[in-house]
Amino acid sequence: MLAQIIAVGSELLTPARLDTNSLFLTERLARFGVDVTRKVVVGDDQNRIAQEVRRAREDAQIVIVTGGLGPTLDDLSREGVAQALGKGLYENPEIIGWIAERFARYGRTMTDNNRRQAMVIDGAEVLPNPQGTAPGLYYRDDAGVVILLPGPPRELRPLFIDECEPRLALIESPLRYHTASLRIAGMGESDVDARIGPIYSIETRAVTTILSAPGEIQLHIRGQASTEDEARAIAAALAQKVADELGDRVYSSANEPIEAVIGTLLKERGLMLSLAESCTGGLLAEKITEVPGSSEYFAGGFVSYSNESKVRWLGVSAETIEKFGAVSEQCAREMAERARDLAGGPGKAVGLSITGVAGPGGGTEKSPVGTVYVGLADDGESAVRLLRLGKERDRNRELSARTALDLLRRRLLGL
Amino acid sequence: MLAQIIAVGSELLTPARLDTNSLFLTERLARFGVDVTRKVVVGDDQNRIAQEVRRAREDAQIVIVTGGLGPTLDDLSREGVAQALGKGLYENPEIIGWIAERFARYGRTMTDNNRRQAMVIDGAEVLPNPQGTAPGLYYRDDAGVVILLPGPPRELRPLFIDECEPRLALIESPLRYHTASLRIAGMGESDVDARIGPIYSIETRAVTTILSAPGEIQLHIRGQASTEDEARAIAAALAQKVADELGDRVYSSANEPIEAVIGTLLKERGLMLSLAESCTGGLLAEKITEVPGSSEYFAGGFVSYSNESKVRWLGVSAETIEKFGAVSEQCAREMAERARDLAGGPGKAVGLSITGVAGPGGGTEKSPVGTVYVGLADDGESAVRLLRLGKERDRNRELSARTALDLLRRRLLGL
Repeated sequence: MLAQIIAVGSELLTPARLDTNSLFLTERLARFGVDVTRKVVVGDDQNRIAQEVRRAREDAQIVIVTGGLGPTLDDLSREGVAQALGKGLYENPEIIGWIAERFARYGRTMTDNNRRQAMVIDGAEVLPNPQGTAPGLYYRDDAGVVILLPGPPRELRPLFIDECEPRLALIESPLRYHTASLRIAGMGESDVDARIGPIYSIETRAVTTILSAPGEIQLHIRGQASTEDEARAIAAALAQKVADELGDRVYSSANEPIEAVIGTLLKERGLMLSLAESCTGGLLAEKITEVPGSSEYFAGGFVSYSNESKVRWLGVSAETIEKFGAVSEQCAREMAERARDLAGGPGKAVGLSITGVAGPGGGTEKSPVGTVYVGLADDGESAVRLLRLGKERDRNRELSARTALDLLRRRLLGL
Repeated sequence: MLAQIIAVGSELLTPARLDTNSLFLTERLARFGVDVTRKVVVGDDQNRIAQEVRRAREDAQIVIVTGGLGPTLDDLSREGVAQALGKGLYENPEIIGWIAERFARYGRTMTDNNRRQAMVIDGAEVLPNPQGTAPGLYYRDDAGVVILLPGPPRELRPLFIDECEPRLALIESPLRYHTASLRIAGMGESDVDARIGPIYSIETRAVTTILSAPGEIQLHIRGQASTEDEARAIAAALAQKVADELGDRVYSSANEPIEAVIGTLLKERGLMLSLAESCTGGLLAEKITEVPGSSEYFAGGFVSYSNESKVRWLGVSAETIEKFGAVSEQCAREMAERARDLAGGPGKAVGLSITGVAGPGGGTEKSPVGTVYVGLADDGESAVRLLRLGKERDRNRELSARTALDLLRRRLLGL
């Protein structure tokens, strides 16, 4: 089965906004073996919405329209879809009741424009929305299904899972799918593809997708078969072959971010992590603490952005900075060792450090923009790795943090 | 003039990828007074690409196709566009030369599949791409312009600016546009709209868009007139009226992020900033250091995630934590004061602190998930602000950091 997603909203056509609901919907639809073949963003224009719905129905059995269900006059998704389907709209008194009740609960009076949200397309089911005022609508005829969902993700997500998925599950699909994922650090996209292309390309029952981001590659291997068990077995077998080829470059086969993998390793070893960051300015700490429960293994970190803070806060020797500079192997080593010692010392804590020139300014002849040292100190010999990155500040910061995370992972695994 | 953007690539239809090139293109097109009325994402399918190009040309004078220009067999944008235009393709020897030269420069041999990138649509101009192997194509006829650009942003961006914009500038447009921006902190979207709706809605020569993100509202006011000067004057006059109404909630009328505004204020006052973060885990430091040159006014920060690090690294008294807890007004105040003192003390440094429960775990009866204290210490009386946020970890972290930034801005301005 095929689906298309139509995101409605003039704000989604401005330079500052993206339709991100489609990512969630695509992921959920994939569980039903439904592929999204096209995504469209249109403004708040009734004729355009109607046109897109008609076009989408030419190719897809499931059409999802997101946004444009609010109370204001530029919310026109209901009208546009009704026009495409050749149906009328009526005001549903039950919805009026829900909306009025919601307003009363917050001690507010329902203004008249909210009645727009109670309009229902003839023949559509109403999907109650406990998170907001605008309900979803679910319409089905011989050509397929059209679903209208409110734009705010916190309303759309539960509405789709609770109301739409059970209805979609009733529609038969001949193929079942299952996706296995592998996450890889320390390799580029073309390296990965060169190594595993010969393996995945001969498995015709699975589709392999390579997604690359700075410092990280994700592989999605989707098996397809007549039963879900079979699809899972196909995906798992291919994922295993690919993982065998890539070896310890694979850091997760459970779709976990590297921060979470590291957290598990640190907990298993009873070690606390302590950070000393310069050019990444807190990005590494921010990544570590994105994982709920990271307080179990994260002691804390120093964002020692100035030389003075490196010396006074961390205790890096002023002589080291004077002699070798703040961007040096020696400084990275001392930063990591001092961070470790301030969190309990060898055997109790691991120190991880980053110092470098993220750019655009600050480059010198010895350390041009993109020069970054990553240091690690545990109870063995301290390690420092030199990176020679490019000129883009954000990319340099991201790559530096990811390299530090992978260095730590490899050390914790004894690689 | 109107434009539509067609992003090509099956990977853009997976749950992990979004087309972000369209944001850049929309922003650049707006400078020419060109509105993007529709964005489409399609897979690597020649017929679908052709269909979308035909549909787009029905409504828009400028159609931009991004991606699908690579060397592999699933790169089909050239073929799809040629099909839509009813044109042929020929191999351009000059491009073959560029590609071979590029390969030679990197010491590699050009494989045969790269010849695909030298195919040119009959009648199209070739746009040289110094950043990659696939050139762009620019096709113009009486119905308008079709532009093909490679998908990688670092190739697409300079190609658009250097090669497409000069060509587009030659096409006459009756209206000129100019956008003025205001950035607002400490207000919600509906509050802003209620205050300024009566002001902007009566100015018919400008379009006002409100964009909201956690802790921040952006207003884009686009004036339109027959000359650019006139459009700028309309936008500036309306922006001034709106700014007068919102007063000190407006932190930038130059489209600057709040981190940059704060940087300027700190430099003017000769103050260094020092941070002590708990639940935001480095996010605040990361925001501050996103600004190039922030080392001039950012001393550094402590990510004191554990109680021990608050006491041992920062010097918060163990008694305070024992008596009031780490999530308390008292702890927030001490964290800010200690951060300030470690960076030079009152008059030289400002300390900013955040401690709270971001969730999902860690909530107590006294401090449920979403309880956050933001502290500020300068040479006056230290301030602490209590926030009662929701249950979403990421949103709580973002809102906490933004509240801290606005607290600092207001203090620096003496508000």
